[in-house]
Amino acid sequence: MSELAGVSGADPAANYPLNCWYVAADSAEIGAGLLARTLLGRPVVLYRQRSGAVAALDDRCPHRSFPLSQGTVSDDQVVCGYHGMTFAADGRCVRVPSQQNVPYDARVTSFPVREEKPFVWLWLGDPGRAAFADPPALPWLQDERWTTFGETFQVEANYMLLHENALDLTHFPYVHPESSPVGYLKTPPQLQIEVSETSVSYHRDFAPGRLVGWQAETTGLSSDREYAQRESGTFVSPALHVDRMHVFPDGNGSGPYDKILTRAFTPLSTDRTAVFWQVSRNYLTDRPEVSEQLRAVHRRTLHADKRVLEAIQARVGTGPQRAEFNVTADLAALRAHRIVAEMLEQERGHRYLPAGARLRA
Amino acid sequence: MSELAGVSGADPAANYPLNCWYVAADSAEIGAGLLARTLLGRPVVLYRQRSGAVAALDDRCPHRSFPLSQGTVSDDQVVCGYHGMTFAADGRCVRVPSQQNVPYDARVTSFPVREEKPFVWLWLGDPGRAAFADPPALPWLQDERWTTFGETFQVEANYMLLHENALDLTHFPYVHPESSPVGYLKTPPQLQIEVSETSVSYHRDFAPGRLVGWQAETTGLSSDREYAQRESGTFVSPALHVDRMHVFPDGNGSGPYDKILTRAFTPLSTDRTAVFWQVSRNYLTDRPEVSEQLRAVHRRTLHADKRVLEAIQARVGTGPQRAEFNVTADLAALRAHRIVAEMLEQERGHRYLPAGARLRA
Amino acid sequence: MSELAGVSGADPAANYPLNCWYVAADSAEIGAGLLARTLLGRPVVLYRQRSGAVAALDDRCPHRSFPLSQGTVSDDQVVCGYHGMTFAADGRCVRVPSQQNVPYDARVTSFPVREEKPFVWLWLGDPGRAAFADPPALPWLQDERWTTFGETFQVEANYMLLHENALDLTHFPYVHPESSPVGYLKTPPQLQIEVSETSVSYHRDFAPGRLVGWQAETTGLSSDREYAQRESGTFVSPALHVDRMHVFPDGNGSGPYDKILTRAFTPLSTDRTAVFWQVSRNYLTDRPEVSEQLRAVHRRTLHADKRVLEAIQARVGTGPQRAEFNVTADLAALRAHRIVAEMLEQERGHRYLPAGARLRA
Repeated sequence: MSELAGVSGADPAANYPLNCWYVAADSAEIGAGLLARTLLGRPVVLYRQRSGAVAALDDRCPHRSFPLSQGTVSDDQVVCGYHGMTFAADGRCVRVPSQQNVPYDARVTSFPVREEKPFVWLWLGDPGRAAFADPPALPWLQDERWTTFGETFQVEANYMLLHENALDLTHFPYVHPESSPVGYLKTPPQLQIEVSETSVSYHRDFAPGRLVGWQAETTGLSSDREYAQRESGTFVSPALHVDRMHVFPDGNGSGPYDKILTRAFTPLSTDRTAVFWQVSRNYLTDRPEVSEQLRAVHRRTLHADKRVLEAIQARVGTGPQRAEFNVTADLAALRAHRIVAEMLEQERGHRYLPAGARLRA
Repeated sequence: MSELAGVSGADPAANYPLNCWYVAADSAEIGAGLLARTLLGRPVVLYRQRSGAVAALDDRCPHRSFPLSQGTVSDDQVVCGYHGMTFAADGRCVRVPSQQNVPYDARVTSFPVREEKPFVWLWLGDPGRAAFADPPALPWLQDERWTTFGETFQVEANYMLLHENALDLTHFPYVHPESSPVGYLKTPPQLQIEVSETSVSYHRDFAPGRLVGWQAETTGLSSDREYAQRESGTFVSPALHVDRMHVFPDGNGSGPYDKILTRAFTPLSTDRTAVFWQVSRNYLTDRPEVSEQLRAVHRRTLHADKRVLEAIQARVGTGPQRAEFNVTADLAALRAHRIVAEMLEQERGHRYLPAGARLRA
Repeated sequence: MSELAGVSGADPAANYPLNCWYVAADSAEIGAGLLARTLLGRPVVLYRQRSGAVAALDDRCPHRSFPLSQGTVSDDQVVCGYHGMTFAADGRCVRVPSQQNVPYDARVTSFPVREEKPFVWLWLGDPGRAAFADPPALPWLQDERWTTFGETFQVEANYMLLHENALDLTHFPYVHPESSPVGYLKTPPQLQIEVSETSVSYHRDFAPGRLVGWQAETTGLSSDREYAQRESGTFVSPALHVDRMHVFPDGNGSGPYDKILTRAFTPLSTDRTAVFWQVSRNYLTDRPEVSEQLRAVHRRTLHADKRVLEAIQARVGTGPQRAEFNVTADLAALRAHRIVAEMLEQERGHRYLPAGARLRA
């Protein structure tokens, strides 16, 4: 109980590892034009080359700091809108219009990009390490046995508040009373946790019970029968959380109705996070009206969480510390905080102490 | 003349003593629901228990920092809106819905409260010292021989600017020319000052003169005769200023028409102050139209002062120092600054230096 | 190429010399009332005395910091709107209404002012040095052989970004493609630079070519013939840039059509600059419609530059440094940066290092 979970977004010291793939954009956002986006506090400009490959550059001309995103693209090169300095997709300056030669070594920082639809992943850390890491595999997003839809929104809160929220669903009866699975309305079953060096997963098995309204409606299952359910979630990396909800129609654990909520959490700054979310299901996959029902349910819960997390961020921004005690339901979140702290320590060469870490010994 | 009066609101170091009763709310503001209020820079949640007693807690759940004021009250206990952590009026955590037991010593800070209608007083300092101090006695607010009315408003200025303004009325001819007593329109009579260790009082005796329009109207006295007047004021504590205006109808000092302006100044932050004001009188007490006339007069003067003090606060926020010289009329305010400086020194164990204190030796 | 040009407006350390005449206002702005203006981060109040002379005082009453500009003028003296403290044009306190005497040495800071229509120049530095410096002579502004018009606007950017922009016109084809002289549309001719200890001038000679539309229209010259042109500019002081455009109608350099753009850059703060601009010409001086055509051209270019510079300021405010490489076209701007750095060093007694100055050795 004495361990500290909180990471204050009020602390200007960024608490996100740089050596990590983060989702920078939805594939559909990037066309032939220049897309400006600030992530991890860094302004970046993204564009798609004629080959289809996405390029990402620092959104600041190294000559006089005009945002490159306010320039133009020509022949897969970015032309600055102030003096016409021109940069290739790898960052090299290839033209200075007012003179014949280009200064030696003039370049803008370029960043490794990996596109796995519908996500465009970006690496802002040590570029040499990007080659040894892959963005997380999310095969259900392309698998035709699954149906997927998604959206994007922003939360004015530190990204670790979103991970905490995703890793502990005991807030459901309080924040989402109308959509809370029945199993949460009394003391929920014990949390089961599995950890690896870089991830943490949990699950809870609910004893058979009736489905709540939206569950019956979107699965086509009976609202009069009782079904076992399992809820599970994984902190895959600082950039990604994956949730699954399984309903066992025959009560014996085989052939479940599975719904996956994939959420990329991208810290835009220390107190703002973009959420790229996708909902996938392996049942009633040819029923668009089910997608629309599920979309409404998830929008409602995600926006209720947003309201809670923004209120916490506002409070943390003024108060002295954040987490004075923890409970059993916090175990997965505490483990995620430890993983992030170790990534930050490795990156920075010193121990990262979350705000308030010495609150209780 | 060389002593420095000013305390800069631009300095983030708070200049309000914590060991002091401050008015947190008007009694009527606190019902069965949760009232959120930030005072002395600290978010607090207030509510009234079934017994009628007011409770005050830190407005931050010690578990994950969600504002308790966004939760609910149930059986005199506050239920957090995030995970349902439940706290008694004394701050003790009494329930964690996701598990059977409550972590040892889990609690939220609670604050001493004293209600003396119409004011709810709060003590944010050392709780052990609250028992040895009482909120100031203001008997006229409950005495049926007096009639009282009041309002609340905010000023975007440090609370000491409000005390300075209240302790030196020589600004009347400039800020309130239309409602200034006649005695101020020429050089005002000498200021008489009495000090104790923790308070400072002043008065001025005006030679007999005619009443200005609003005085004649609200007292029913003749506008053709001359009356002696005395104006007096007291810095009771950092939280309270009391002003009195006496008109002597028979010219010999007995049986005066007394009007008391009671002002609680509550620092919400270093540059914002709540003013809870009450006007009481011992004459024409059964005439509601007199209350409405006086309300209009005081609203006008208080809001003219607000405009002045906010302009000063804005200027102090950018300028290098505040008070380069003082005059005789500042003596009461200088003494109040010294009292506050001594309270701060005692509280913090070191000498408090107001901004610009070394301006002139 | 390794020298650093940039001065970050994000750095709260002001990068403007104080010992310099800056334009505070247009003559027409100052009448009998009080004009409040903040320049070099300092609030100043300006007013015109009955003699016609302009006075300038700190816009803060030294007694309790109320802005003097919210008071009144009476007999060439400023009366504070709080307690009526009264100050002469030289800053001396001449009256304290609540007492007979005035505290010894009570005064508000006054500043040297010089009016050379249409500009009112102000000196905020060491007043003893003001007597040994004159505002720059701008004779064409009063010379009746020239016609002049002008306007004022503000740019949310550090004033040195405006100087850089004025000292390097190779941005014309990118920022002002529609009004760019023909000579800039290919690689421009070599920049010629002349420096003195406190100023830097440049010029470029364009080989004969056709005039662009607005040039032909506003000179009455043929759009079918070719004319030699010279563009020149001078960084006169941190407060002033003067640009000239010469068109040689007979091709041999005599009797040019001259147009002068006089720009006073007044830093209001580190990230905001007022621009007082005047356009003068020595041709078609009796044709008001030419003034209106030129006004439209200059408004368009000045506002296009404003947009660029504000985007840079916003980027510099978040990024780590500003100028990673320079090119030949930057030589005049680099020299201006050096002049300012030397002025600052002299003023402050230590070496001024622009933000990012150690970026590349």
